[in-house]
Amino acid sequence: MDEALLNFTLTASRLYSWHMDLIVTLQCQDQPGIVHAMTTSVLACNGNIIENQQFTDTTTNTFVMRTRIETEDSLDSAKAAITSGLGHLKPTLTFRPVEVRKRTLIMATTESHCLRDLLYLQELNEMPIDIVGVVSNRETLRELVEAHGLPFIYLPIDSLGKSVAEGELLQLIEKEQVELVVLARYMQILSQGLCEKLEGRIINIHHSFLPGFKGAKPYHQAHERGVKIIGATAHFVTPHLDEGPIITQDVAHVTHSASPEDLIAIGRDIERRVLSQAVKLFAEDRIFIVGARTVIFQ
Amino acid sequence: MDEALLNFTLTASRLYSWHMDLIVTLQCQDQPGIVHAMTTSVLACNGNIIENQQFTDTTTNTFVMRTRIETEDSLDSAKAAITSGLGHLKPTLTFRPVEVRKRTLIMATTESHCLRDLLYLQELNEMPIDIVGVVSNRETLRELVEAHGLPFIYLPIDSLGKSVAEGELLQLIEKEQVELVVLARYMQILSQGLCEKLEGRIINIHHSFLPGFKGAKPYHQAHERGVKIIGATAHFVTPHLDEGPIITQDVAHVTHSASPEDLIAIGRDIERRVLSQAVKLFAEDRIFIVGARTVIFQ
Amino acid sequence: MDEALLNFTLTASRLYSWHMDLIVTLQCQDQPGIVHAMTTSVLACNGNIIENQQFTDTTTNTFVMRTRIETEDSLDSAKAAITSGLGHLKPTLTFRPVEVRKRTLIMATTESHCLRDLLYLQELNEMPIDIVGVVSNRETLRELVEAHGLPFIYLPIDSLGKSVAEGELLQLIEKEQVELVVLARYMQILSQGLCEKLEGRIINIHHSFLPGFKGAKPYHQAHERGVKIIGATAHFVTPHLDEGPIITQDVAHVTHSASPEDLIAIGRDIERRVLSQAVKLFAEDRIFIVGARTVIFQ
Amino acid sequence: MDEALLNFTLTASRLYSWHMDLIVTLQCQDQPGIVHAMTTSVLACNGNIIENQQFTDTTTNTFVMRTRIETEDSLDSAKAAITSGLGHLKPTLTFRPVEVRKRTLIMATTESHCLRDLLYLQELNEMPIDIVGVVSNRETLRELVEAHGLPFIYLPIDSLGKSVAEGELLQLIEKEQVELVVLARYMQILSQGLCEKLEGRIINIHHSFLPGFKGAKPYHQAHERGVKIIGATAHFVTPHLDEGPIITQDVAHVTHSASPEDLIAIGRDIERRVLSQAVKLFAEDRIFIVGARTVIFQ
Repeated sequence: MDEALLNFTLTASRLYSWHMDLIVTLQCQDQPGIVHAMTTSVLACNGNIIENQQFTDTTTNTFVMRTRIETEDSLDSAKAAITSGLGHLKPTLTFRPVEVRKRTLIMATTESHCLRDLLYLQELNEMPIDIVGVVSNRETLRELVEAHGLPFIYLPIDSLGKSVAEGELLQLIEKEQVELVVLARYMQILSQGLCEKLEGRIINIHHSFLPGFKGAKPYHQAHERGVKIIGATAHFVTPHLDEGPIITQDVAHVTHSASPEDLIAIGRDIERRVLSQAVKLFAEDRIFIVGARTVIFQ
Repeated sequence: MDEALLNFTLTASRLYSWHMDLIVTLQCQDQPGIVHAMTTSVLACNGNIIENQQFTDTTTNTFVMRTRIETEDSLDSAKAAITSGLGHLKPTLTFRPVEVRKRTLIMATTESHCLRDLLYLQELNEMPIDIVGVVSNRETLRELVEAHGLPFIYLPIDSLGKSVAEGELLQLIEKEQVELVVLARYMQILSQGLCEKLEGRIINIHHSFLPGFKGAKPYHQAHERGVKIIGATAHFVTPHLDEGPIITQDVAHVTHSASPEDLIAIGRDIERRVLSQAVKLFAEDRIFIVGARTVIFQ
Repeated sequence: MDEALLNFTLTASRLYSWHMDLIVTLQCQDQPGIVHAMTTSVLACNGNIIENQQFTDTTTNTFVMRTRIETEDSLDSAKAAITSGLGHLKPTLTFRPVEVRKRTLIMATTESHCLRDLLYLQELNEMPIDIVGVVSNRETLRELVEAHGLPFIYLPIDSLGKSVAEGELLQLIEKEQVELVVLARYMQILSQGLCEKLEGRIINIHHSFLPGFKGAKPYHQAHERGVKIIGATAHFVTPHLDEGPIITQDVAHVTHSASPEDLIAIGRDIERRVLSQAVKLFAEDRIFIVGARTVIFQ
Repeated sequence: MDEALLNFTLTASRLYSWHMDLIVTLQCQDQPGIVHAMTTSVLACNGNIIENQQFTDTTTNTFVMRTRIETEDSLDSAKAAITSGLGHLKPTLTFRPVEVRKRTLIMATTESHCLRDLLYLQELNEMPIDIVGVVSNRETLRELVEAHGLPFIYLPIDSLGKSVAEGELLQLIEKEQVELVVLARYMQILSQGLCEKLEGRIINIHHSFLPGFKGAKPYHQAHERGVKIIGATAHFVTPHLDEGPIITQDVAHVTHSASPEDLIAIGRDIERRVLSQAVKLFAEDRIFIVGARTVIFQ
């Protein structure tokens, strides 16, 4: 092939992109040769590594890696090559073509700011998730949700009882093949059993900068203490309330002139940004849970 | 006086500045007419207000104000005019010509980063305090302190006993007319009596973002919990350990890749910045203690 | 009145708030006695100052002040007292009860992110403006605007011709008593005459960190130059393109891995935040134009 | 070996660390198989990859990688294995055991803030460079430099003439095997020839946020324009003044109340932080120059 033709072909290949753009994640015990095994497998499926991030957590001796691959092979063929090439490492592997979005269920009660931010970013095309619906234990947010063309599922814990309600929720999650549950200011405590079933795929926003100010009225506590910074924390939900692995946190500087109500308003702004950021990281397979902590590849 | 001469005189007056540049602070119960009384008093001493900041704390019904005045009157004359004009408000008043620096005693143990930052900023002419000396319960920092031409006062708590040592400290504070004591990583707990005597003029740096992670090894606690933000808090010392009014706080974002040792290094950087900022605010009369909180005029 | 009754009355007064909460702004040549004149006037209308911020710009010898007053007098009576008490200073004065919102017209072309952010914040009750409608030279955003229950005014510059279109725009502005025009990514250059007519009440978002990267494709310019920070600038519109007084600016750190498209997405996020912040500051009477610069009371 | 003994040995190995901790950097044309070739070579020298970062710059089709390896092999043996295993890629390779520090020459004129920050961080053990001395065209900083136990080299451009002075400078750089030259507010323009000779190993701090406000008195320009953010830029020096690849930038928010002198003071603080950050990145082999841009592995 002469050079002009070669260049044309390469350009065309980029322009028309018949390549699959694939995210692979791997988690296993640390040991020599992991990256080598991955690169060998990628060559085996005619792939090219276009991004690669890795980390070894020495506390737990765990190795995690996120690799973005371009290949002309099919998804099945790439999965087979990589799974077989890395099998001896006994890894947890995930595969997702970039254009496949995670199916996401949002839960909320009456406050709308976190929900609105997720909807808003999705409309701006900056939040790569598929929202299957919004579950609430109140009717307050129905109009907002339906105005965005999404199913609103009213699930009254009080009248149904928690175990019946959670049963319906689990059925919905299974039926809709939900991969991520987002608690966007959902003001009910989930049962230990449900938390365990959803472990690793349910994210909450804590309306405070953990570990400070647990309990009720955190912004009033912050005001009384005269703090100069307030914050919020997005974390995975575990059976231990507010103690799951932290995903992302942010803060804002505040002054003496902020009333508790001002702190609540500033807090809302942080909460929605922090939750949306955590959801986006999850949507892009950038979060690994390693022991009680997370590894995040930005 | 013709206009050219007038302009010359005004310019000269600015250039040679026989005006006094005076900071007045006021704190009293909130009531109508405070600002009016101040502006009337300032006119009475031929003064001109060049900066004014005020705040009403509704929780405690306290009014605080920081006023910067330019006047050709003497300090005594300005003090008399303002004190008499505001007397009916029963205020706490302070007066300080801008060029008079607060006499400051630094206390440290073995870690040098906070001490170094204060010395460094002073050499850059960005820290308007007069350092009368550095007190330590160890000999470690003697060389550093003396290399900067400052007295190093070794005060061994263990061999002297706390009450004798604190007695000597108080004597030093009185003799040197110390207006501010800075605990720059001083690793001894002061007695309740001493804290009470120095209340409102002793600042500590807490090596953590209050209220999270009290107690020993905060950065190890932060690492175990996998936090994404660490911080530090400068606060006034009160008899209630780590609970005095907060002056300033700051944070840094951290990632999974930071070891406890990395967190300590990042923490050092925040600690020194936060403490230096608090000391500078105090040196410029920008801090008011109102109940359990501070009002800070930036 | 015995003390219990007095306390009851004061509490009731706060609860039922028959007080007017009034924002007064003042701008005049700097001279002695301004604050004194204001405090005297406020006493004259039975008012109480609850916030006060002031600044003297020495370059232009201009004094500006924003005062928040609580009074039981009527708006007319307070205006009369203050206007007469300050008349000798030849000031520019504005008066606005806090609950009266500025009538605002938004202009946009096809990009929706800035418009969406304004609508979103208003729905969260965090943007105290009354939006009278959205003008556009394209039909693209009609559906979005009408879904929010707002008038969409299609004003095709190309077919109408700029001078006819701007004539219609001015009519609309007068008829609707518009106090603020927001260019939320409006991609037409306004005529010099229109800019002059709207001077001081028309705000633009510049999709770059001024003064760097003027002109077309700023994010591509930023990418080529390999900058590590990108930003956006909200400013008043003047006849001199992109040179009006700057209101607010913000930036984001970026890395080598950001493509021009990534920079555009990050830029969108900064643009909408910066514009919304500027609009909020204007809505709350916190911006003063002093020469080529702004004074902002946060 | 029984398990207790094995654990003892593993622990001892970590504690006494007879492993070499080696940083390898690679830069070459992008092509398939690079990471695979590296992992194969690392296995060949009994190494273990403990950190790896890579990036493909699509504009220039350049691949860069920074790999941190632990090996029991000697430096020579590891270099040989990796150089031969990657030779077919025609890469630029560097090798540095972590404990070997880059020999650094600092140049300054009269302002001390950037120099002081580098010395200060080094004393805190947070700046991994070996400073061979400080060159200046003035005598102002001699005392400061010598008080830190470092050679001060007075190189008066004006009396020697630029070409003689630069000749002496180059001799010093060769004799002292200088790997990095830091212009820490050095106020002389270097000749084009010298810039070319030192390309890629000479860093400057630009006292402004490029590309805005080039030229003299940037902080006065910023003040006149009323900007709300000021910044500084550290960049490599090239024959094109202020146009070399940008390494790091930072900014601070400022308000209307800042005078040009205040902006200069705030600017000093940003300048020293930004320059120190850039020097540290260079010292740790984290910077790659790719065309007109840099790739930075944080």
